[in-house]
Amino acid sequence: MNYCSNCGHPVHIGVPAGDDRNRYLCDHCGMIHYQNPKMVVGCIPEWEEKILLCRRSIEPRYGYWTLPAGYLENGETVADGARREAFEEARVRMAVMEPYALFNLAFVNQIYFMFRGPMTSPNVGAGDESLTVRLFTEDDIPWDDLAFTVMRETLTRYFRDRERGAFSFHMGDIAPLSKSFSGPDTA
Amino acid sequence: MNYCSNCGHPVHIGVPAGDDRNRYLCDHCGMIHYQNPKMVVGCIPEWEEKILLCRRSIEPRYGYWTLPAGYLENGETVADGARREAFEEARVRMAVMEPYALFNLAFVNQIYFMFRGPMTSPNVGAGDESLTVRLFTEDDIPWDDLAFTVMRETLTRYFRDRERGAFSFHMGDIAPLSKSFSGPDTA
Repeated sequence: MNYCSNCGHPVHIGVPAGDDRNRYLCDHCGMIHYQNPKMVVGCIPEWEEKILLCRRSIEPRYGYWTLPAGYLENGETVADGARREAFEEARVRMAVMEPYALFNLAFVNQIYFMFRGPMTSPNVGAGDESLTVRLFTEDDIPWDDLAFTVMRETLTRYFRDRERGAFSFHMGDIAPLSKSFSGPDTA
Repeated sequence: MNYCSNCGHPVHIGVPAGDDRNRYLCDHCGMIHYQNPKMVVGCIPEWEEKILLCRRSIEPRYGYWTLPAGYLENGETVADGARREAFEEARVRMAVMEPYALFNLAFVNQIYFMFRGPMTSPNVGAGDESLTVRLFTEDDIPWDDLAFTVMRETLTRYFRDRERGAFSFHMGDIAPLSKSFSGPDTA
């Protein structure tokens, strides 16, 4: 941020009176510009014993597999957003969804909120951000080719819950990758 | 938003190529300015059979009672943010917290995420945004003087769960108030 979005004058960084954090401040019109984390909402689409993944047609992580997810938009509920993303990326209509997991990606100012639930039909199709979409059994999950750590964490917990026969709500923190992505058992 | 925060030129509203929503666009530097919902994080601080509420010393809803909560900051996890707000508003240190509820306030582009859990001590104190803070039994909750619908919904579900002896994760939508705030049984 270089300029005030209200009046167009240059901003500077400083701690406002009564605050304890640096903000972008405009001395011309007095506006304080707060910046806050964004929510990413998504889901695990289920069809019988399989779950759906999308192969990304965009950067970052072009060609890698992911669950449908994206930024929550103004005016949406988290469930609305997750359903929209499932349709945009995989032409999937979700039936009843259960809240499944929240992951903090504090290092990029993102909060992921993931649902799980059945699709209304096994008919799926690649949206603009997907090369292809496919249903996977647990044994077929491409663990080494998942796009993001948060998706690996979501799926790891999902299959563990399914194995024990009970889904609970999960919460976790995702740290920055210190090395290249390497599978389901590393941080 | 009137001016581009990147280059300072005037912005206009339009739908970017490949998008389907209005955004603030800068024709000078080409930047698209996305706006997304903000998260508000808070908690229900418990001490034995009581829970803590804060009486607000700021607008909106000056003088009304609320659970400690506030905007999630960049770099924070949702739990970090809820703990920070509990300390800032009520000088409360929270022990282990459980995720308790998510509420969509789509009409104001806010997502509330609430925890519950015990305080580490019954010693509390009013922070800058509180006139006073107090522990309440269920019978003493000032239902008619709660600051926000989302807090009434949180507390209603909390005491119902406590009554039946099991806390589960809740999700709900809060609609705009169509009339003045009037107690725990109206929408």
